[in-house]
Amino acid sequence: MVVVGIIAEYNPFHNGHLYQIRQTRKRFPTATLVVVMSGNFLERGEPAIVDKWTRANEALHCGVDLVIELPVAFCVQPADRFAAGAVLLLREMGVQKLVFGAEHADYDFAALAEKVGTVHGDFSRYNESFAAAYQRVIAEKIGHRVDQPNDMLGLAYAKANREMGNFLELVPLQRMGAAHHATVLAPGKNIASASAIRAQLMQAKTASVNNYVPQQTLNDLAKQQLVSWADFWPLLRYQLLTATHEQLRNFYDVTEGLEFRMKEKLERLPQTADFETWLQAVKSKRYTYTHLARLAVIILLQVTAAEVKHVSEKPYLRLLGFTPAGQQLLNQRKKKVAFPLITRVTQQIRKEQLQVDYRAGLIYELASLRVQDHGRAPLRVGYSLSRESH
Amino acid sequence: MVVVGIIAEYNPFHNGHLYQIRQTRKRFPTATLVVVMSGNFLERGEPAIVDKWTRANEALHCGVDLVIELPVAFCVQPADRFAAGAVLLLREMGVQKLVFGAEHADYDFAALAEKVGTVHGDFSRYNESFAAAYQRVIAEKIGHRVDQPNDMLGLAYAKANREMGNFLELVPLQRMGAAHHATVLAPGKNIASASAIRAQLMQAKTASVNNYVPQQTLNDLAKQQLVSWADFWPLLRYQLLTATHEQLRNFYDVTEGLEFRMKEKLERLPQTADFETWLQAVKSKRYTYTHLARLAVIILLQVTAAEVKHVSEKPYLRLLGFTPAGQQLLNQRKKKVAFPLITRVTQQIRKEQLQVDYRAGLIYELASLRVQDHGRAPLRVGYSLSRESH
Repeated sequence: MVVVGIIAEYNPFHNGHLYQIRQTRKRFPTATLVVVMSGNFLERGEPAIVDKWTRANEALHCGVDLVIELPVAFCVQPADRFAAGAVLLLREMGVQKLVFGAEHADYDFAALAEKVGTVHGDFSRYNESFAAAYQRVIAEKIGHRVDQPNDMLGLAYAKANREMGNFLELVPLQRMGAAHHATVLAPGKNIASASAIRAQLMQAKTASVNNYVPQQTLNDLAKQQLVSWADFWPLLRYQLLTATHEQLRNFYDVTEGLEFRMKEKLERLPQTADFETWLQAVKSKRYTYTHLARLAVIILLQVTAAEVKHVSEKPYLRLLGFTPAGQQLLNQRKKKVAFPLITRVTQQIRKEQLQVDYRAGLIYELASLRVQDHGRAPLRVGYSLSRESH
Repeated sequence: MVVVGIIAEYNPFHNGHLYQIRQTRKRFPTATLVVVMSGNFLERGEPAIVDKWTRANEALHCGVDLVIELPVAFCVQPADRFAAGAVLLLREMGVQKLVFGAEHADYDFAALAEKVGTVHGDFSRYNESFAAAYQRVIAEKIGHRVDQPNDMLGLAYAKANREMGNFLELVPLQRMGAAHHATVLAPGKNIASASAIRAQLMQAKTASVNNYVPQQTLNDLAKQQLVSWADFWPLLRYQLLTATHEQLRNFYDVTEGLEFRMKEKLERLPQTADFETWLQAVKSKRYTYTHLARLAVIILLQVTAAEVKHVSEKPYLRLLGFTPAGQQLLNQRKKKVAFPLITRVTQQIRKEQLQVDYRAGLIYELASLRVQDHGRAPLRVGYSLSRESH
């Protein structure tokens, strides 16, 4: 059995993602395709535009066999830790090959990872962001920069794979059609970046993205509440204003006096200031916008350092959905996996494994108005019609 | 110097309040009139419709000489504790007479208080609310019920006064024109209950209350954000969903397992449920709506038991505004008061005395969009025009 993995956010699921799945199927026609997907809060420190069930469902309808939710404790993390969490779950599911998009699909990512090793560069220059310091060290080790977003993620996957004994064959696919961070839709093409699509959607132009997303996504976007930071900003503001410095410091990665800076900047802004304005005010040479946006999610979700540690030490596999082929893989893996396989959220699971994810779900519901975890069973797609549910 | 006190909420300041001030002036023409007023969160467990500065300003323009803010730790309390806090501050300001409205102005409130004594009735019947138990004990002691809202408050003032050595002469005024809890405006009258006026305003009919409030109030209401529970419900919901049972239990008066009941009821309601729906779901024979609404404010403001204790043990006098006559009284009292007189909120005062009030102000600002404490100086009304500020 060939098992191929993809690590994704699908925010939203668009034609570029569909293209990647089709390319994968072309290369590995008999493979079972496993996706580890972020839940409702994402790597760049923002809520997903539609919820995890909707995005998982889209993926399952477009050729994926099994969708596993990456715990939020891994999601809202810099690329290396995000990648390490995702690769760990792929290994547990018996995945042998990892397909990922790259700006330079010709790079030998495994070799690059070998050169980089376990980089713990000198990150103590306080007027330099972690991201910049990391880039500097990488360039020193490899001899050239690796600074395109998908290349960087690919390197992160390769590093995680190396640390877990190189169990994965890395399969970079040349990225097509759109720069990762492009925010404008290019006319005449049918692939655009997720950022560009989101920007368009936030101006309430669902119809205008119809060239860039599959029909299923278009339908979902049209009928659901689209979620953004604007929905959570009042809650984050409330949390920042009421939490003491001690409480803020207790949250994951809120260090180096950021608890003071975050509160102080907020109190000095007019009451009408939005999320971006606040984040720009907090930003410094030391802290990139994205790093701070992640911390903002951490604070919104009230994720403590102890909770992240707990999830890292005791990971689990939360199933969001599967096809018959995915179910076959599940049956095969059931007795081999060391991590708990979570299908339904019982009170016990909610308290033990899923504390953070469940809380994240309750908070996301405040904006999406759709139940996230309580009583939800995995989606089943591609079964005979009478049993299909989505 | 005759100093007369009034305890008020002015939510909003209306013709009934104006009438009370005029009656007081008629009876004590030379008196300095001191008002102890709730800040932005009120005795019945709700936010004030407009902020404390606006309401203090209205009172100062209508004949009051000095407005002192009742700390929120005293405001959001059952009548007895609310009254005890307010009477304590009046004593500190040298007040000799307390004027208050009553449904039965012919009651001898001091004598009633003497009969009631320090009631600590048998409140352990778990299918009976505190309010009902209190009423039962009062009726046993006095021989008749004292169950009209203003009469009850009057009795609470009398009891507080008795416990502080009867330094106040109690001056009940017959209440005019409207039942306390009436929610409909009576045509052809010019006095209506604050509840009726608020209900009308919440349907956005500012003009329709013009018979019932002074011109200054009408202007203020027309130009300001009107605040209600609806503004804070998303924040309370967020707080209830994210706080652990331990954290909730740590808040003032959240006892007897209410922390479980409050969370559980909320999680079972649809995402679109409003504040009232949730409160009705939590309500039981044991807990009245008002008691729970107060706890809701406590949780929203995250007021701990320790914080209430701190304020009770170390009270302070926060000045919201004064006239020249008020300032004269202040000058006279300055050296006699045992409590700190707070005019401006320094960092030190914010940390020591005003922790809860300052936090309450920050939260209220999220809805009112007007700065409440940072950098605010007391209002000065009735000075020569060049110095007047409001």
